[in-house]
This record gives sequence, C-alpha cells and structure tokens, in this order.
Amino acid sequence: MAKSPVLAPRSEDFPRWYQELVNKAELAENGPVRGTMVIRPYGYALWERMQQGLDARIKDAGAQNAYFPLLIPQSYMTREAEHVEGFSPELAVVTHGGGKELEEPAVVRPTSETVINASFARWVQSYRDLPLLINQWANVVRWEMRPRLFLRTSEFLWQEGHTAHATYEEARDYAARIHRDVYTDFMVNVLAIDVVPGRKTPRERFAGALNTLTLEAMTGDGKALQMGTSHELGQNFARAFGTRYLSREGNREFVWQTSWGSTTRMVGALVMAHGDDDGLRLPPRLAPVQAAVVAVKGDEPVLAKVREVADLLRAAGVRVQVDDRVDTPFGRRAVDWELKGVPVRVDIGPRDLEAAPEHGGTATLVRRIQGSKEPVRVDVLPGLLPGLLEEDQATLLRQSGELRARRTSQVRTIGEAADVAAAGGWARIPWAAVGSEGEDELAARSATVRCLVAEDGSVPESDDAPGTMALVARAY
Amino acid sequence: MAKSPVLAPRSEDFPRWYQELVNKAELAENGPVRGTMVIRPYGYALWERMQQGLDARIKDAGAQNAYFPLLIPQSYMTREAEHVEGFSPELAVVTHGGGKELEEPAVVRPTSETVINASFARWVQSYRDLPLLINQWANVVRWEMRPRLFLRTSEFLWQEGHTAHATYEEARDYAARIHRDVYTDFMVNVLAIDVVPGRKTPRERFAGALNTLTLEAMTGDGKALQMGTSHELGQNFARAFGTRYLSREGNREFVWQTSWGSTTRMVGALVMAHGDDDGLRLPPRLAPVQAAVVAVKGDEPVLAKVREVADLLRAAGVRVQVDDRVDTPFGRRAVDWELKGVPVRVDIGPRDLEAAPEHGGTATLVRRIQGSKEPVRVDVLPGLLPGLLEEDQATLLRQSGELRARRTSQVRTIGEAADVAAAGGWARIPWAAVGSEGEDELAARSATVRCLVAEDGSVPESDDAPGTMALVARAY
Repeated sequence: MAKSPVLAPRSEDFPRWYQELVNKAELAENGPVRGTMVIRPYGYALWERMQQGLDARIKDAGAQNAYFPLLIPQSYMTREAEHVEGFSPELAVVTHGGGKELEEPAVVRPTSETVINASFARWVQSYRDLPLLINQWANVVRWEMRPRLFLRTSEFLWQEGHTAHATYEEARDYAARIHRDVYTDFMVNVLAIDVVPGRKTPRERFAGALNTLTLEAMTGDGKALQMGTSHELGQNFARAFGTRYLSREGNREFVWQTSWGSTTRMVGALVMAHGDDDGLRLPPRLAPVQAAVVAVKGDEPVLAKVREVADLLRAAGVRVQVDDRVDTPFGRRAVDWELKGVPVRVDIGPRDLEAAPEHGGTATLVRRIQGSKEPVRVDVLPGLLPGLLEEDQATLLRQSGELRARRTSQVRTIGEAADVAAAGGWARIPWAAVGSEGEDELAARSATVRCLVAEDGSVPESDDAPGTMALVARAY
Repeated sequence: MAKSPVLAPRSEDFPRWYQELVNKAELAENGPVRGTMVIRPYGYALWERMQQGLDARIKDAGAQNAYFPLLIPQSYMTREAEHVEGFSPELAVVTHGGGKELEEPAVVRPTSETVINASFARWVQSYRDLPLLINQWANVVRWEMRPRLFLRTSEFLWQEGHTAHATYEEARDYAARIHRDVYTDFMVNVLAIDVVPGRKTPRERFAGALNTLTLEAMTGDGKALQMGTSHELGQNFARAFGTRYLSREGNREFVWQTSWGSTTRMVGALVMAHGDDDGLRLPPRLAPVQAAVVAVKGDEPVLAKVREVADLLRAAGVRVQVDDRVDTPFGRRAVDWELKGVPVRVDIGPRDLEAAPEHGGTATLVRRIQGSKEPVRVDVLPGLLPGLLEEDQATLLRQSGELRARRTSQVRTIGEAADVAAAGGWARIPWAAVGSEGEDELAARSATVRCLVAEDGSVPESDDAPGTMALVARAY
C-alpha cells in the first residue's frame, strides 16, 4: 500500500512544502507580533548544535564572546551614512520606558556595529590592544514585510563578529579567514551543504562595507540562499566613532574593521537543501538525535531491549533517543521520525527478541538518507552505526554538489541568465557581461547576482579581477 | 614595601569597591542607554560557564530549550491581573516598526509567561502532552531607575523555565526540584556560595504566583542577594490564556504551571560573595582560567618553558592561560591576575630554568585563595594542581558559610531585626513575630524578609507552618 503524502509534494509547490515541513516537524511557528517566530524545541536543538559548531570554530580563530546592549540610542544609527540608509526602513523603535516617554528614542539593534564601536573607541588605545576580536550571540530585530519562518523573520538569532585591526591587510585577511575557516568549513563539513563561497557585487554589499564575502547555498528548487557574510568595513565606523590607536611609531591611526554574521536562517537552509517529500533529512554530524531506537509494540521485554540497545549505541558515541510511546501507533511515529529527518531508526518488536538470541536478538535498521530498510543483528549495531552515519554525511554533501552541478548553466547574456533563474537554476555568466546596468535588468526579472567567483572557484580579490564569473539566481 | 591598594577598601565603601572591581577586572561597563550594560569578554566568560553548568542541570531535569519572541503584544501583558500590575512600571514599549506607527504597541519582554502561554495553549491538547518542560536562554528588559552593573540593569540575560503539569502536586514538586537540583546544587557546588534556600512571603512573591522559592546569598558586607527563584504559578496563566488538556477521564482541565529563572546578577553575586581587597576570587570549578602560567621576564627559553608547562597542565585537565605579555611589567600583570581572581598563578623566570633541571626546572606557585606563594618543582605540578584547585573550591564554600554564620543573629523583635540588618547582618526571627504588618515596619527601615525557612533549615511547605523562621536583611 502506497502511503498517503504527509507534505505537499516538493516539486509542485516548494514554498508550501517548506511551510508544512517546518510546521509538522515541529521546528517553528509564527509568534503573535507580525513576522516574529517561536522556535520549538526540535528546531532550537538544531540551532544549538549550529551554535556549538560555529562557536568552537570562532574561538579557534581567536575571537572572544561578549555581550552588548539590545537598545541603541537612535542618534548612534545615523553616525555612519550608508549604515543608517541601509537599516532605517527596518528599525523597531522604543519610545517609552519605565512609564515615561524617553528623551531620546532607542532602536532595538538590527546589528551592533554602532554600539560596539562606542565600546571599541574606549577599549582600543594602543597597537598592543590590537587585534581586538569579539563575537556576540544575540537576537536582532529587522522589521520584515514578507516574513517566512527561519528565512526572513522580524526577529532572528545570530552571531555577529566585530574586529579591529592595525592595518587594511590584517582586516582583509581576517574577514577571509572567518569566511573560510568558520563558515565554509562548518557549512560544508557539518551541514553537508556544498556552498559556493564568493564575493558580493558593490550593489549587494552590507550597508557601510568595502567588501562583503558570502556563501550561497542551492535550495531544492534551484534558488539561492545566503548562508553567512563576512565584511571588510574599512575605516568607516572607526571614523564615525573615533576608534583610533597609537601606533608603534607614535601616530594616532584609525583602526581597520570587520564584521561577520550567521543566523537562524541556516535552519531554513538545512530544510531547503536536504529535505525531501517525506520531510527533513539531517546530516548526522549536526543531528541532535542520530538514531531513534523505537519499540514497535509495547510489552516489557521489548521496552527493556530498546533501553539496552540505546545504552549500547550511546556507549559507541551515538546520540540516541528512545521512542517508547507505545500508546501511539507505530506508523504514526515512523512518519514523525521521517519528518524530523533522524538519520537512523532502529525498530525493535516482539519477534526480534526471539531471533538470533546468541547475537543479542535482531532489529530493523531504517536509514533515512539511503532510503534502506534491513534486518540487523543487535550485537553488530554499535560497531556498525558510526561508520554508516559518516557514510550518510558524505552522501548528503555529494547530493548537494550534484544538485548544484545539475541545475547550474553556463550562459552568455543577461536574458539567458534571467531565464535560467526563472526556471529554477543558477546561471554562470562572465561578470564583465553584467556590470551594474545588467544588475538592474536582472532585478527587473527578480534575479540577482548572488556572488562573484574566479574561474577556478576561488574568491576574487577585487570586483574587476579578470575572468571573474557572476552566479545569477533567484533568492530566498 | 606594602603595595598600594588597587581598589577602594571593601570595609570602607563596599559599593564603591564593587564598582571599581567590576571595572578594573574588565567584567562590564555601562551601555549608552541608561541602565544597560556591556558585558566584556572576561565577564561574559563567567556567564558562559554559568550557562553551561545550569543548562546541563536543566536538561537533567528533563526540560528542553526553545525560543520565544522578544516582542509581545501589549494586550497580552494585561490578561493576567497581578502580572500586569507587577510589570507595568518597568516596560519598554515599541511604538514604531518598519517606518510606521504600529497598530498595537509591542512591549519588549520583561519575562515570557504571556507569550509562552499563547504557545502552550496550542501545544497542550491531551494528558499525553504533559508535563511540558521548556527552558529559554534570552535577554529581557525591565526599566531600571537605580541601575548597578550585573545586579540591577535595564536589560539582563537569563534563563527562564516554563512548565505545564496535569496536577497541582506535580507542578509544586517540579518547582521544588528545580530549586533544589538545579539552583541550589549549582550555587553551592560550583559557585561555592553557601546560599539559603527558602520560601518568599506572600508580599515578596512573583507577580501572579501562588508560591515563590528563592535562594539568598550573603554579600561581603552582610546584605542579601536573591540568586534565583522558582515559582508555582497555579492555574492563573492557564485561565488567562485558556491552556487546557483532555484528562484520561475525558475532562477538559486547566494545566498547573511553574516558572523559574536565574540571571546575569549571579556574576555580581560572585563578586560580592567572594571578592576581597585585591579583587575577585573565583571558585575553580567556575573559573574560565584556573591557572595563569606567567613569563616573569622574556627571553625565548623562558617563553618555551612557559608553553611547555601550560601544555602539561592542560593535559592534566586544568584550564590554562599563558601570559607572555613581557612588554608589560610583571608587577602590573600580577595585579591584573589577582583582580581577575584566577585561582592559581605559575610564575616562571630565568632562574627557574637553571634550578632542579632533573625535575624540569622550578616555578613559583601563587595561590589566590589560600594567599600562599612557594617554589615548586615543575615535574610535580600537573599531579599537584587538580587537588589544590579542589581544596580552593572547598575553602571558598567554607568561608562563605562562616561569613553567614558570623553575621547572622537570632532576634525576637522587629526592631532588633531592623537593627541587625542596618548594621550589615542577617536576623533570624520567628515568622509569627513578623507577619505582614511587621513587613511594613521592616520596609520603613529598608529591610525585608528575604525568605522563610523551617527551624531545621529546610523549606517550609506553607506560609504558616509551625516553627517557621524569617530571615531579615537589607538586599541588593
């Protein structure tokens, strides 16, 4: 009997499929204020694992965590001209506090460059204080007119790094290091998404930056999703806030800065990159639960065996959850584990206890990513599973790369690029054939240059490096 | 030569000493919006370690993390009568978003009972969905007229737990479990503060609660500091938000709820409980850096030895930081490590390389908590240090208990209690001798009943249990 579909088919209505998956896998739901989001425990567990993976890499890159205030005096936002222009339309403004109208309204941070520079200007005195490498895990608010859970929400969670350096070169290299060793490494090796690292065009840069590095992921419907950005801020904020240091030579110099961020939209990206018609598929290195050990039916010997197998797997280093909710029909629970994308299910029923007792009994091993289902001896499971999970991890990354290769086309004109994007794909086109006027034409057809890459796939060192290619797509 | 004091002496001006310590140890500083706080990297590292310790205990108690929106519709706040009364004077109100005036203003959450209940009302359908055990790590805003870094700030960081249960008894027991297994356990065994667990009087309860459990710490000047609270909310929020479940018997019943929180004020408490005239003293189980390995002077063989010793100590499981800032005079760095309260310093200079080469050389072991300084052979250090750190941990806890015993007096009248509090101490007085009128008298003399305890030190099961004692003090 073919099972009835749990979700709207991905191929028919991708946005609806996404919405239903986020809802039915209990990842998130809408909050009461327009555009806000409640992140449910399973969705938050994904975010927590992302935080852990990124935080370790950020600390390896030498940055320290700190915390800056949510509320920023409105006047701070206007000090850097491009910055205020970029963020003004999205600000949430606090006008009353403690029962009174405030003398100066405060904005809820849309990002923390301004308030952090107010501190940096005090903390940085001498070259000995540099580099100053700070990261913050926080919530930010950017009013969102067309919200979509995880991808665009009026409040989101993120980390934002902010650094100050003595020279342009050091700042440029640090922005590139974060882009490579933190973001690309994490997204490829943990999220199993074959992202394209590249450079934004001047038009698509962060408000107030000299240069923005990005990572673009392909979604299941051939669109693009920006996964994280790392900015060279130059000296713009330093000049606006007076952040200067005394050099070894005794001169007072403005610092060179970077900022870089990644957000809860990564959870949405994970869904859009790896999900299928049955739900989410989680890369094992990220999965909060790598293996669900499921009691098919509920007498005590089965439950005891389930607990025993779970303990064996935990001892082998596998993140395990026991499913002993035998009041709920097995079929419904199986569908739920598929929706939630848990890589491996180990089903145990009464008959498994009698089979192969000299090998601890049997179980049914159901692999979400390979789509396989086979009987297995319990005594071999702990030795087997870690290897299978690494195989699943590699499969997802390979599929992500194959998807991108299949849906990327080399084109020569802007019209062709826009056609490819409209059909659900990425177009590769020489950047020299686009230019800023070409970007206007693309925008008119709902496409953008997602990033610039060198012909060999590396990140171009400048906007006009010879041979630079533009990747064009529609974006979430 | 006696060293000149780095801080205002604690005995002369405790609040000034606190302010100077927080500043000079680089824990935090004021933010630009009144009452807000910048938590600097060293202060944030303390908070991160607190988060880790509490989060593990919260998960052991079965709760899962989730995230709810920062912005709450103003109308939500008014649904529970006592709640709105408690929080109205402290609210920050967002009136504009995305460039427009909002149809309904939103408040920045002062706590999340209301917005969480809006979700709980959807998530809880049947007895199978209970208990629902949720925790959130977040920032909250309560407008503060008399701010003090960490202790009272307009924005602070915290965890807030929110749970729903089928029966009164289950909710009551869970609130008590969090109070005991999460808060008391963490504060005694990690923070090394000999807190008093007790029950708040009706007057001091959380706005909308049936019962509030608290933990009170004694500060170095004999005042009290509330360290965390766990509330029985009864069915007040469930009625206000319609949070009901279908019982096994087929009836629609309101759930019974708890909420519980601990905040960044714990960092301030740590300073006030353990600090001395030279700075902070950190319990080793919490300390982000347990041992600083310091190059006294700077030729390469010394720096090589410092790195070698640091690696040996790391391999022994000690959290180590190398201090090779030889451009800065040793004396200044030594003062800085004392200010920061790092439990152990291992100083290595040129002469140490020549001494006892068959034992890997020597070092000077400086212990912050014991106040000792002695030469030590490098080869015994890795075996020695973990035990010394545990000894330091026990010393701080013992001193905290001794302080409290020394400055607590048994009294019989409200006047005596207020005198004890005014002189910098805690008064123990029979609760029957106080009552709510007595609380008015105490308030007029700036003192409060911090909590109610049973004569044997346990937490009373009701407000009027026979033999209940009140602890009276001034509070931060």
